Amino acid sequence: MWTFEAPPLEYWKATYNFTPDQRWLDHVRLASVRLPNCSASFVSTNGLVMTNHHCARQCIEESSSKDSNYIETGFAAANLRDEKKCAGLYVDQLISIEPVTDRIRAAVTAATPGERATQRTESISAIQRQCETGTANTCQVVSLYQGGIYSLYRYKRYSDVRLVMAPDGQIAFFGGDPDNFTYPRFNLDLTLLRVYQNDVPFKPTDFLKWSAAGPAENEAVFVVGNPGSTGRLNTVAQMEFLRDVQYPATLAGYGRQLDIYSQLAKNDTASARRYQNDVFGIANSQKAVTGYRTGLVDSARAAKKLAFEREFRARINANPALRAQYGGTWDAVAAAQRQLASFNPTLRYHGFAGGSQLLTIAAQIVRVASESAKPNAQRLAAYRGPGLETIKAAVVRERNIDVAFERLALAAQLRAAQSELPAGDPYLVAALAGRTPEAAAAALVTGTSLTNTAARRTLIEGGASAVAASTDPLIALARAIDPLNRTVIARSDSLNAIIATNAELIGQALFAVYGTALPPDATFSLRISDGVVKTYPSNGTIAPYKTTFFGLYERSAAFDNKDPFHLPQRWIARRDRLDMATGFNFVSTNDIIGGNSGSPVINRNAEVVGLAFDGNIENVPNRFLFDASIGRTVSVHSAGIIESLRKMYDGGRIADELQGVARR
Amino acid sequence: MWTFEAPPLEYWKATYNFTPDQRWLDHVRLASVRLPNCSASFVSTNGLVMTNHHCARQCIEESSSKDSNYIETGFAAANLRDEKKCAGLYVDQLISIEPVTDRIRAAVTAATPGERATQRTESISAIQRQCETGTANTCQVVSLYQGGIYSLYRYKRYSDVRLVMAPDGQIAFFGGDPDNFTYPRFNLDLTLLRVYQNDVPFKPTDFLKWSAAGPAENEAVFVVGNPGSTGRLNTVAQMEFLRDVQYPATLAGYGRQLDIYSQLAKNDTASARRYQNDVFGIANSQKAVTGYRTGLVDSARAAKKLAFEREFRARINANPALRAQYGGTWDAVAAAQRQLASFNPTLRYHGFAGGSQLLTIAAQIVRVASESAKPNAQRLAAYRGPGLETIKAAVVRERNIDVAFERLALAAQLRAAQSELPAGDPYLVAALAGRTPEAAAAALVTGTSLTNTAARRTLIEGGASAVAASTDPLIALARAIDPLNRTVIARSDSLNAIIATNAELIGQALFAVYGTALPPDATFSLRISDGVVKTYPSNGTIAPYKTTFFGLYERSAAFDNKDPFHLPQRWIARRDRLDMATGFNFVSTNDIIGGNSGSPVINRNAEVVGLAFDGNIENVPNRFLFDASIGRTVSVHSAGIIESLRKMYDGGRIADELQGVARR
Repeated sequence: MWTFEAPPLEYWKATYNFTPDQRWLDHVRLASVRLPNCSASFVSTNGLVMTNHHCARQCIEESSSKDSNYIETGFAAANLRDEKKCAGLYVDQLISIEPVTDRIRAAVTAATPGERATQRTESISAIQRQCETGTANTCQVVSLYQGGIYSLYRYKRYSDVRLVMAPDGQIAFFGGDPDNFTYPRFNLDLTLLRVYQNDVPFKPTDFLKWSAAGPAENEAVFVVGNPGSTGRLNTVAQMEFLRDVQYPATLAGYGRQLDIYSQLAKNDTASARRYQNDVFGIANSQKAVTGYRTGLVDSARAAKKLAFEREFRARINANPALRAQYGGTWDAVAAAQRQLASFNPTLRYHGFAGGSQLLTIAAQIVRVASESAKPNAQRLAAYRGPGLETIKAAVVRERNIDVAFERLALAAQLRAAQSELPAGDPYLVAALAGRTPEAAAAALVTGTSLTNTAARRTLIEGGASAVAASTDPLIALARAIDPLNRTVIARSDSLNAIIATNAELIGQALFAVYGTALPPDATFSLRISDGVVKTYPSNGTIAPYKTTFFGLYERSAAFDNKDPFHLPQRWIARRDRLDMATGFNFVSTNDIIGGNSGSPVINRNAEVVGLAFDGNIENVPNRFLFDASIGRTVSVHSAGIIESLRKMYDGGRIADELQGVARR
Repeated sequence: MWTFEAPPLEYWKATYNFTPDQRWLDHVRLASVRLPNCSASFVSTNGLVMTNHHCARQCIEESSSKDSNYIETGFAAANLRDEKKCAGLYVDQLISIEPVTDRIRAAVTAATPGERATQRTESISAIQRQCETGTANTCQVVSLYQGGIYSLYRYKRYSDVRLVMAPDGQIAFFGGDPDNFTYPRFNLDLTLLRVYQNDVPFKPTDFLKWSAAGPAENEAVFVVGNPGSTGRLNTVAQMEFLRDVQYPATLAGYGRQLDIYSQLAKNDTASARRYQNDVFGIANSQKAVTGYRTGLVDSARAAKKLAFEREFRARINANPALRAQYGGTWDAVAAAQRQLASFNPTLRYHGFAGGSQLLTIAAQIVRVASESAKPNAQRLAAYRGPGLETIKAAVVRERNIDVAFERLALAAQLRAAQSELPAGDPYLVAALAGRTPEAAAAALVTGTSLTNTAARRTLIEGGASAVAASTDPLIALARAIDPLNRTVIARSDSLNAIIATNAELIGQALFAVYGTALPPDATFSLRISDGVVKTYPSNGTIAPYKTTFFGLYERSAAFDNKDPFHLPQRWIARRDRLDMATGFNFVSTNDIIGGNSGSPVINRNAEVVGLAFDGNIENVPNRFLFDASIGRTVSVHSAGIIESLRKMYDGGRIADELQGVARR
């Protein structure tokens, strides 16, 4: 995940015998654009922008007319007039990068950490404002190496973005949550947008040309996009906390939820179908967190990380100036993590993490009452400004509360709390009042009226006095928990602040010692990642470097076309049109993570060979330590995009445009 | 793996609501036949026999005419006259089972173990002879529960077996070694034979009808066949020896071989291609042994085994008679295993396990010389009777010895020996003579003339005096190792005899305590295994319960039709004829192991829904403790067989016969 400030030219030359010049780098940078949460790129002379289907869902939904649902049916504009404006959508193009570390350092002169933080924030704001003044640009100071260096990223923003083509949702997300984070894959996770200026298609100075053939096995390819967040500069102590405390607790919570769904489904096939999507969703999160933890548990990776940290600290300690500035940071982080670990169950249960929706609503009602009474600045962060109204609206929103689920969830949460908290814990005492978890949950869920929207509204509107007077058993419980919650959250916040401060110092230390030899953690800013299109050992055999349309039909037929492996009608009806052996998805060793969705995958000629949309299951642990041996980026194949456009979506016009074919 | 003596009727009723009557059981038993190394079944009224392609390779090879290679091209007889006799092949049908435990026990009256063993062997031979006398039957006393009970299995043998149909080898073994032991799979691992009597097709009393639809998801199915060998009654001490001593050594050996191939391939692409099959073969063995060990390392399985052994021993110890007879067996096994572990490296290196082909040949030459001089009865077992000539013939056989490989293999073997044996070990001293392993290997391989067939022949023909006079450095080394080898093998044999004796007692004890509630270990005799056609979690998602022809073409296209994923020409040319969504392979939870290859998979109507040919990678650890959660049997789908016959092999005649369709 190299920055465009410091591409590893020597490493690329040694590895791929590839030495892009500055023009190449500028070209791919300017051809890349960023969506609010994803990556994208210009892919035609007339401003076509390519991204993932899952990056443009809102636009696709909102472009649908009253009688249509483009998420379900897909959409391909027959001509320019047919292209649909995506309200509120914009793309940002990174037009320049400027170092501003010295300016920010010079502005930070105070002695106390709090004052320094304020000065830093103000300096960054000033730089950004100054950069934007008198222009239509958007400017952002990016903090690399956790504050090790600061760069000013200047973006040109394009705010007229229109929907050109989106496939059927079911082909974009074929295989659904089960296949998410896996490979072999068969997803046309594609949306084509177009940037307009003054109501005519924009002509970008730089766009990526198209590779009709797509990638060859073992070919070097580059992913250009905006990876969101990695934790590779975390200290060993931070990783151990995640590994031993946070992730196990999160996974236990998923396990409880899945147990509940399986209990509910056992005697009721209808509910099994109803819960299927929830189950898939949780299983998907479970997959991600299990994968993160796998990376942390992996002894080879852990040893590598430990060795790196030892060497890093030894270098800091060998230099008196660096030692004075940074020497104590690791121990400070470790001490804070140890403290956080010491009361983690209290934090989770007093903090309402997961479990019952009704109890969460009760807690919000109690808190809205007390926070509303305070001046804005003194409220808890989430209740400041528009936050308060957002929370109120959420509480009184009409919703279907699944009482059977709630009862089991509350019981499971209380039973887990009972096993993790000391016997006299005030939350447990208040919630159980001498009952078993199951009896308490039954009484609370049966006794509450919070399932009723009107009852919730009455309490929200009645304010502090209504809440204080309420005899609703869940409100009473929430009142009892509220002070416990405030105490434990405050304690946790102050320890996390210590960790954040020291993490920033460690980032600075890293940059001071290694410079740009190591790439910074992901910051949802433009990066370029190199890799190779490559098979890998999987499932006792070899996973192929690409998939084809045959595989799409295989996976559907092998599941008797059952959800989430059913094919859209169009793909059934038009199957014979396809050249079935056309490449559909492929894998490469590039290093990507959430935010990279929609990134173009290009060859050394800067031609699009693919569209990145996911990683394999072996890629998930890469969040904390990258390992290219089996982790892979999964992309849509450029040939599969063209074939789908032409054969399935009557999209010859669009395919020709991508391929640069002149049309009459 | 239930016996037909004691099918678990109550368990089947409770699990599947299935209660087959004795007729059903007799019918499927009589419809099943055994090949010399595999399982098979009658599948038509005219004596068609279905088995795997890999079970009939020799017949397919030998049936090929001078200008044809049916292994490569496949074969489908156009009519009865075209069916090809398989020389020497026979199938055995289990026509009756008779308990003979009491007869054998009564015959074993001696006091010493040696005499008892002789009496037992003689009693078994007598029973078998008596059973066969005056009939054309073959009889076999099967020792179940390691001698816990004995059953006399009477087989009717059919010796006129002809080849009816075999697919192209590449479709039978599509995916080759990489895909072996894995799923999803796409193999037409099928051969159809026909039993003849008096030159006309045999009409079996019992044959299995065909299910055109094949299995439904979650349907109960039964595999009827002859599982070869399992180690589930092994004691914990035996399993620990495999886990901690034997398998790690075996895996280290595979690792060394693969390292050598990768060294050889590094600078030489041509050799990389040449070695590919060897590499795949070793990787395949590595996969199997890694899988066995995975089952032993798995803490949940190990705990289950330990708990079982504790309970079992407690039951034995609670009964004074059983205790007196069996109480000491586990400790005796454990003591012998500990001794075997104590000199395991010596056994491996003095025993020539693996490594250099040249050194093995040298050792055989030296030993042929000394063993030939002895009376037959005093020779080492392998050199008795026709064994001696077999070994001689192997030594003088014309063969291509890969000198580059030999040199690296010998060096790797010596280096490994150096790290595992004490410094003064006489084998090491003789082999290295003060040199590094690499220098010694170079000198031995360069100096030897054993690469030359004539030189080998001269030594074999020259006998003891020629061998004693030889100055060939490998012969000299083999002469030095020979006495070491004899000593260590004798020591190992005597310890293994102790283990075998006690294992037999433990088998008897098991049967004494649990009766037939637990099935005996596999003995390559007829068993019936129940299971369910079922998906399983794999690779972060769900493995489907079946595959279709789409998947075959997918896997080939995804590897650009490269070996071992290339398709036979016929399958490329005739692709459009196929109904691509037809089931091709499927998985079920049945318990199978080597020997079950070729077993029919039947539904509760005793109709063929499939043909078992492999397990998934998760099934490999089941050798030692069965776990149906993710282990699966992999079978060819009955619909895929019919579709292949009709569309690819012009086999309408055969398909009609399987489906019981009358032809004019």
